[in-house]
Amino acid sequence: MKRKVLFLISFLSFALVFILQFIFPLTAQNSDPIPSWQKGATKTALIEFVNQVTTSGSLDFIPQSDRIATFDNDGTLWPEQPVIQVMFVLDRLKEMIKDEPSLGEKQPFQAALKGDMNYLKEAGEAAIMSILAATHSGMTEKQFEVEVREFFAKETHPILKKKYTNLAYQPMVELMEYLRKNDFQTWICSGGGIDFIRVISPSMYGIPVEQVIGSRLKKEFIEKDGKSVIWRKAELDSFNDQQMKPVNIDLQIGKRPIFAAGNVRSGGDIAMLTYTKDNSLPSFQLLINHDDAEREFAYAEKDNLSLKTANKSGWQIVSMKNDWQTIFK
Amino acid sequence: MKRKVLFLISFLSFALVFILQFIFPLTAQNSDPIPSWQKGATKTALIEFVNQVTTSGSLDFIPQSDRIATFDNDGTLWPEQPVIQVMFVLDRLKEMIKDEPSLGEKQPFQAALKGDMNYLKEAGEAAIMSILAATHSGMTEKQFEVEVREFFAKETHPILKKKYTNLAYQPMVELMEYLRKNDFQTWICSGGGIDFIRVISPSMYGIPVEQVIGSRLKKEFIEKDGKSVIWRKAELDSFNDQQMKPVNIDLQIGKRPIFAAGNVRSGGDIAMLTYTKDNSLPSFQLLINHDDAEREFAYAEKDNLSLKTANKSGWQIVSMKNDWQTIFK
Repeated sequence: MKRKVLFLISFLSFALVFILQFIFPLTAQNSDPIPSWQKGATKTALIEFVNQVTTSGSLDFIPQSDRIATFDNDGTLWPEQPVIQVMFVLDRLKEMIKDEPSLGEKQPFQAALKGDMNYLKEAGEAAIMSILAATHSGMTEKQFEVEVREFFAKETHPILKKKYTNLAYQPMVELMEYLRKNDFQTWICSGGGIDFIRVISPSMYGIPVEQVIGSRLKKEFIEKDGKSVIWRKAELDSFNDQQMKPVNIDLQIGKRPIFAAGNVRSGGDIAMLTYTKDNSLPSFQLLINHDDAEREFAYAEKDNLSLKTANKSGWQIVSMKNDWQTIFK
Repeated sequence: MKRKVLFLISFLSFALVFILQFIFPLTAQNSDPIPSWQKGATKTALIEFVNQVTTSGSLDFIPQSDRIATFDNDGTLWPEQPVIQVMFVLDRLKEMIKDEPSLGEKQPFQAALKGDMNYLKEAGEAAIMSILAATHSGMTEKQFEVEVREFFAKETHPILKKKYTNLAYQPMVELMEYLRKNDFQTWICSGGGIDFIRVISPSMYGIPVEQVIGSRLKKEFIEKDGKSVIWRKAELDSFNDQQMKPVNIDLQIGKRPIFAAGNVRSGGDIAMLTYTKDNSLPSFQLLINHDDAEREFAYAEKDNLSLKTANKSGWQIVSMKNDWQTIFK
């Protein structure tokens, strides 16, 4: 008998709380989900899209398992002037030269350290690969992670004068949180190194390491000092740019995103945005235009192909200058 | 004033429910989480491990983000006598011969259809690859998915006389559910094809497509009939067996599992289990021994290396005959 009474009380309590939620919603639920975005067409379109695909009963409703969103990283979630991973490469080279000074007199390392872009362009892919090999391979997964952590702990952006880990674009962080609250999965799909990004993605973006897609080296499983390790080889496995972004999304996610965000500079995100646009489900494409020389950087694409495709295909274009109230927190 | 009163009622209701849970726990919480497992050392070890790593304050507590569990598929989650994907290959070949009868007189297709294993062994990898190419590539992602769905819809296991989709090992399905309830991520890591498994993993195992790791072909992003598609090429990208399992776990998950399950037959899971065992966090290894000729199949490994390694390394060995009360639902 006591059992029944307790259950009844428990049930009534639940029912009361349930009903109260409707009579008296907490104010937080009505507040602006992406406050760093200026009022305007882009903000309205974002919120409308999320409402449209998450309202059950709506014609455009999309089940949770299909709510996949992919984000480029450099220039989309943090600055790319200069590309932060290139700064890491230079930092590693300087460290290596401390141990082995003769390295600094050898090419292509000398050119890299001097920023001699003409030499590097001339020397081409082989030179870039040998720099990448020297700085990113020939070590275990753990060793590489330690190197990356040290870089982020000590280095600051040369112009913005902030730690790189404090340079996430606040409007994008809010947008990803907003999507996750609406049961989207938020993935990174970047031309940058998968293991480089994984070091900072949980703390900077709230994105777990298993939801990072990026460029990668070949690896092997070996024994070292009596323990099994993953060894980084000096050989490129996939350069996750342009047409390879959809291919690696297919590999790691296994379905087409309904939301993708990229940016203007190299045209590297056009394929990913097109892949998303061709989803048979309703979808959203966001292209960030770097037009804010005062608060960040202003730069354009050689042939403006990203912007042209955006206009032709109906992608939403973000003006950092006009659409973002704040850029950095 | 009204607002305050409502909040007070709401708060008290919550508090009451919260307290009642402790005084009077629902019986469901105390019931057996993996009822298809026989009482015994394996079952006890499984439940103890889960309690140990999920009890906050315990020395062995592991945060949710590190609770990664990986499962082989063939012989670990469903039968591998015969390998189901091989049945799919034969099915596809027969379909192809309907359209192009001359194919059945050509090698290696003739040998495959006749089950002429001697020919195939002699002809080696090139023959296998050309069969795989003919049946698995030269089509879009979507077309392949449709072929696989059709196979599962119509075919039944030649000996067990059930639809393949009804052949999940019930104890393993329960174990994965139990782990997920304890905030583990459950991943498949199989020598089988990633896209083949993705068709059935959500419905059979409750595993979403993005948590499947498997063998894969190279792919490309192309335009076809005015729409962007992922095209399956006739070239192997990764054969996810043995040493490649940890490498692909590192690629798709980015961290070492704390739990892994595999089975006896080819030694294909030794590397994955070793990788998990060498985790600096507490970990669990499960090796399934096929010793139940009555309810499933009994078979051993040529050199018994999996069992030997299990005994040496302290992995838990599952006797299907003694540890599993039910095999199929």
